[in-house]
Amino acid sequence: MSYNLLKGKRGIIFGALDPNSIAWITAERVHEEGGTFVLSNAPIAMRMGQIDELAKKTGSQVIAADATSEEDLENLVKQSMEILGGKLDFVLHSIGMSINVRKGRAYTDQKYDWTQKGTDVSAMSFHKVMQTLYKHDAMNEWGSIVALTYMAAQRVFPDYNDMADNKAYLESIARSFGYFFGRDKNVRVNTISQSPTPTTAGKGVKGFDGFISYAEKMSPLGNATAADCADYTVSLFSDLTRKVTMQNLFHDGGFSNTGVSQEVIEYFSK
Amino acid sequence: MSYNLLKGKRGIIFGALDPNSIAWITAERVHEEGGTFVLSNAPIAMRMGQIDELAKKTGSQVIAADATSEEDLENLVKQSMEILGGKLDFVLHSIGMSINVRKGRAYTDQKYDWTQKGTDVSAMSFHKVMQTLYKHDAMNEWGSIVALTYMAAQRVFPDYNDMADNKAYLESIARSFGYFFGRDKNVRVNTISQSPTPTTAGKGVKGFDGFISYAEKMSPLGNATAADCADYTVSLFSDLTRKVTMQNLFHDGGFSNTGVSQEVIEYFSK
Amino acid sequence: MSYNLLKGKRGIIFGALDPNSIAWITAERVHEEGGTFVLSNAPIAMRMGQIDELAKKTGSQVIAADATSEEDLENLVKQSMEILGGKLDFVLHSIGMSINVRKGRAYTDQKYDWTQKGTDVSAMSFHKVMQTLYKHDAMNEWGSIVALTYMAAQRVFPDYNDMADNKAYLESIARSFGYFFGRDKNVRVNTISQSPTPTTAGKGVKGFDGFISYAEKMSPLGNATAADCADYTVSLFSDLTRKVTMQNLFHDGGFSNTGVSQEVIEYFSK
Amino acid sequence: MSYNLLKGKRGIIFGALDPNSIAWITAERVHEEGGTFVLSNAPIAMRMGQIDELAKKTGSQVIAADATSEEDLENLVKQSMEILGGKLDFVLHSIGMSINVRKGRAYTDQKYDWTQKGTDVSAMSFHKVMQTLYKHDAMNEWGSIVALTYMAAQRVFPDYNDMADNKAYLESIARSFGYFFGRDKNVRVNTISQSPTPTTAGKGVKGFDGFISYAEKMSPLGNATAADCADYTVSLFSDLTRKVTMQNLFHDGGFSNTGVSQEVIEYFSK
Repeated sequence: MSYNLLKGKRGIIFGALDPNSIAWITAERVHEEGGTFVLSNAPIAMRMGQIDELAKKTGSQVIAADATSEEDLENLVKQSMEILGGKLDFVLHSIGMSINVRKGRAYTDQKYDWTQKGTDVSAMSFHKVMQTLYKHDAMNEWGSIVALTYMAAQRVFPDYNDMADNKAYLESIARSFGYFFGRDKNVRVNTISQSPTPTTAGKGVKGFDGFISYAEKMSPLGNATAADCADYTVSLFSDLTRKVTMQNLFHDGGFSNTGVSQEVIEYFSK
Repeated sequence: MSYNLLKGKRGIIFGALDPNSIAWITAERVHEEGGTFVLSNAPIAMRMGQIDELAKKTGSQVIAADATSEEDLENLVKQSMEILGGKLDFVLHSIGMSINVRKGRAYTDQKYDWTQKGTDVSAMSFHKVMQTLYKHDAMNEWGSIVALTYMAAQRVFPDYNDMADNKAYLESIARSFGYFFGRDKNVRVNTISQSPTPTTAGKGVKGFDGFISYAEKMSPLGNATAADCADYTVSLFSDLTRKVTMQNLFHDGGFSNTGVSQEVIEYFSK
Repeated sequence: MSYNLLKGKRGIIFGALDPNSIAWITAERVHEEGGTFVLSNAPIAMRMGQIDELAKKTGSQVIAADATSEEDLENLVKQSMEILGGKLDFVLHSIGMSINVRKGRAYTDQKYDWTQKGTDVSAMSFHKVMQTLYKHDAMNEWGSIVALTYMAAQRVFPDYNDMADNKAYLESIARSFGYFFGRDKNVRVNTISQSPTPTTAGKGVKGFDGFISYAEKMSPLGNATAADCADYTVSLFSDLTRKVTMQNLFHDGGFSNTGVSQEVIEYFSK
Repeated sequence: MSYNLLKGKRGIIFGALDPNSIAWITAERVHEEGGTFVLSNAPIAMRMGQIDELAKKTGSQVIAADATSEEDLENLVKQSMEILGGKLDFVLHSIGMSINVRKGRAYTDQKYDWTQKGTDVSAMSFHKVMQTLYKHDAMNEWGSIVALTYMAAQRVFPDYNDMADNKAYLESIARSFGYFFGRDKNVRVNTISQSPTPTTAGKGVKGFDGFISYAEKMSPLGNATAADCADYTVSLFSDLTRKVTMQNLFHDGGFSNTGVSQEVIEYFSK
């Protein structure tokens, strides 16, 4: 179903790795709604991924960029405007990675080089993306920038490890840059705090199956899927939400405001 | 501009008093997007207002209902389903009133009969509306219920008086009922925390002009207008936001997450 | 152990029913710390309770007051100042009651007379207490007013029913009145959001055993007990916390910021 | 005035630069309450500061440590236990620094080497301190760890620049590590979100005078001073607050929950 909500709008979508990625499904959905975009991913992720397939499907070009490199981002932003034929209206940041998680290092036993690398990739990259857009005046007025995040930024989920702190940092960057991007360019910046989602990255987290099952039972509407997230992102890119900014928006079937559900409490009531 | 986002959807819109009302402008916008609805207001508000004009414009019927009366609400819900030809997909609650505010009673000198009346009209009415919908199984799956609120529920705005507590109560009702409406009927319930808006009701609050000017200066994107709010409500009624529930959503140009703006701080820096 | 933290301080403690009550244990603790106070409870609760025993133990007088009656509260405040020999330094509000809970009415099937009565007793009473204190200028500068609340005000705990909304209302009243009491009298107002506690009232809630066991497993430090709460309340009545105001303070062993614990997630991981 | 609240308790206090420092005044206050401690600061800060004077006054030893160096922290923790004669009961982290702020770089024009350095010093250092304490099992059961933060972590204060994001990161680390420190060692971890305070560091921030005057006018009880903060920290180190953990505690005279004050709104009402 298409509403033409994004007709004439141009953007960049970061982080589409494979058809399970939220960014991948969002790209398809944005395309349905009439938006045009450049796809970007880290060079290494591109080699592993199937992004060319998505590019073909959506009539997009792909530009490799290390989102921690100011130079790469500058190149990406400039080229994107050229390819798309003007300034941008939307940007999706769906980038995150923790070496401590990958290598199974406990939160209380961090290797700080890895922690710092994770922060740079997962959070600081969002600042770098926005600073590049801001400096090159690459966003149209009333454009919309969205980053994906997770509720571990507010509450502890033990296995989420240092990604929790990275997400808190990311959400703060959204607020801080949102102020300046709003005041100076009338551009909005928000984060979507998404249900746990069985992406290729998500499924790699230790204990993910138990966790997604718990979240499902705790959420009155069930977990939000990647397709739901794509829909919601479209609404945030559209002109219907022009005065929503500097917000962290929970998209989770009600998980965030459920203290405990009937279904979960029953496990503890025998 | 119309996207047909609400084509085939039916609902009830409470609280359209005159063309400055958020509910009025939302009704027009919902109509543009293809939604059909019944308009409802308190009998007394209907006598003062111009709601028939709106009804004509949007091809709607008007049913008077005192939102504190279970009987009136039952009648309204039943009739609405008959008129519209089926269960409902959306409901907007835009109802609020404080006698203490109207009569200029200080927050520290409440007349409690008035306080209780304000709570009943402004907050408990939302529970009554939802309980009536729930009991009559009047909402379609994936329907959306929205109430309008204000940030005084979180932080003190001295002139907002006992309406602040009413709004906190209202937001809690949204969460609480949202849990049950989600779990049992797959219906979502949210509140929009809107910028101060120069409606007929809003303008009646003491010191409103100073306040709206302050809010404008504090909001990186400026205050959200009633028309902006109508757009945002449409997005929340649409199928793009089906997993957003039990949330209080700030729609305020960034006010809520701005500690102080450059423009405001300059007043205090000699 | 006593530190003399409340030496010379006078107050009123509401809601001591029996030795399981948080208010009861707090009264004992305040007495140890050198505070003097009047005990107050509803006439009916006093007949059922053993408050005279507590009064004897702490050298206190008991004054019956219906906390929904402005007249009773006025009498209580005046008499307390006479008995104690001066203005007050601290007040504890530990009052709550829901007839819907008691009678087993579902949240989606409220009897609104009962709901309104619960709101009056559980939340509005706090406004009435403060308005009486404010009007009679009964608080010393840098005095401290505390009410007990529960996290259901922020997140849904299905069995907590309409008490959730009452607590949200109560917390809002604390903020709102806290502004005026702070500005005009340098008095602070806060709420303590306490772990589920096996008081006589608490144990009456359906499913309480399962719930307290879940909360224990979710809290890194375990549930806060009534004795812990008494200690914390003493810190808030003392001069060590004079600039803390309008806050809702979680006292729960970390429950509120734990998304899920290792212990709980194991139930969902086969 | 002393209550002997910290008699027999041992700890480490980071960040006492000069008599305006919150850490300095807290050290004096902790000493009054019977606590013993080691003072620590960065080597460079120690050369500039007057920490020896404080050491003499409080009978403390000083150990230089770069809080970003795991080796320095390990040495500090081990030596502190030797000097103080046992495990620790309290730790104060009052460390923060942004080169972007110092050099006047706008938030939208960050030099990322500086940003990364600021994050390491201001936030990651807190993780390193806790990881060192945790690994060496250096905290007694029911010990208390506190870090100082600022509300820019939640809302934007434009001149606070990248320190806002550092503080958000710091607060997340407090929650995350608080979970593990609580679960494994019964140690609590909290942050105090303090009013703007005219320390030597604070006064260096651009526009600080205007800002502190605005905050004073917005806070019903006025800004919390460094002495107030010392008192509050003592309460958090004491046994009265043993079940408070993973919290960010606003200590600000009510600023955080004041939407606007009467005094401030008057500037906008002519």
